[in-house]
Amino acid sequence: MRVLGIDPGLTRCGFGVIEAGVARSVAFVDVGVVRSDAGLPLEQRLLTIRNQLVGVVDRTAPDVIAIERVFAQHNVRSVMGTAQVAGIALVLAAERGIAVALHTPSEVKAAVTGYGRADKRQVTAMVASILGLAELPKPADAADALALAICHAWRGSVVDGAETPAQRAWRQALGNGRS
Amino acid sequence: MRVLGIDPGLTRCGFGVIEAGVARSVAFVDVGVVRSDAGLPLEQRLLTIRNQLVGVVDRTAPDVIAIERVFAQHNVRSVMGTAQVAGIALVLAAERGIAVALHTPSEVKAAVTGYGRADKRQVTAMVASILGLAELPKPADAADALALAICHAWRGSVVDGAETPAQRAWRQALGNGRS
Repeated sequence: MRVLGIDPGLTRCGFGVIEAGVARSVAFVDVGVVRSDAGLPLEQRLLTIRNQLVGVVDRTAPDVIAIERVFAQHNVRSVMGTAQVAGIALVLAAERGIAVALHTPSEVKAAVTGYGRADKRQVTAMVASILGLAELPKPADAADALALAICHAWRGSVVDGAETPAQRAWRQALGNGRS
Repeated sequence: MRVLGIDPGLTRCGFGVIEAGVARSVAFVDVGVVRSDAGLPLEQRLLTIRNQLVGVVDRTAPDVIAIERVFAQHNVRSVMGTAQVAGIALVLAAERGIAVALHTPSEVKAAVTGYGRADKRQVTAMVASILGLAELPKPADAADALALAICHAWRGSVVDGAETPAQRAWRQALGNGRS
């Protein structure tokens, strides 16, 4: 099962792709950050992010997209842009009939480090260790996206992804044979 | 200048279309609400809204899309879905090279009723009066979307819409001749 993790953000949106196999095995596939120019109007920033995420999905062909769940009470200044990018990632997944899962930051930290309040440095170090990376993934948004993908692989069933019955029915209605 | 107003929402997203002419003249074109089923997964709700908004844009061919500016501090429970729908409307406008403007609720109320803290009933009544509608537009989301479109027509220049120089450059770069 190939998992694409997305850490939504308007200025920097992290993505990380892993291949999850049996017995919690996970292998690194891809990692990076898509960006938008803060000098552009909002709608053009969002379209820039969407177009780059379309490229990531086309290139990496994920079975599941795991997105960080955004809460309104955190960082009110940037949360609207973050929510909008999360919405764009959600729509993209639905357009392609790809299953979606949302995980909270503390779920991701707990899954990867065993501790829900781990700091960014601990998360990055554990991601590198789990995936056997020679270098620490940077920036933090990219490491967080890999952590999301690992979290998803370990929290969900490796066979089924994180599909709910409604999601599976929807995907099947689209005639998309992926599983 | 044809203006599409969008009052973003996940359960009900209002839209209203007017044709704005010289000397503050405005004529009714279309109004309605697109909905998503609260029982569906979030990504499918967002895609449902997007697909319906694509239909509205295709059918009404707006020159400008005016969207209500969402603030994180209002109604934390629903604000994330509202922000995501606003993001989808923004991306749709950018994909089509249609100019975008954001107006706050108090700007809309002030433009339509002369009073920034007008209640929904006053806004609905003024919208019906301004557009010469025989019936009050319902639900409130639909009336609000028409109010947004009127606000945009009256606040911006009727000739130029509300394009910033960056927006105009972007639209021209897309080769879209609309003005």
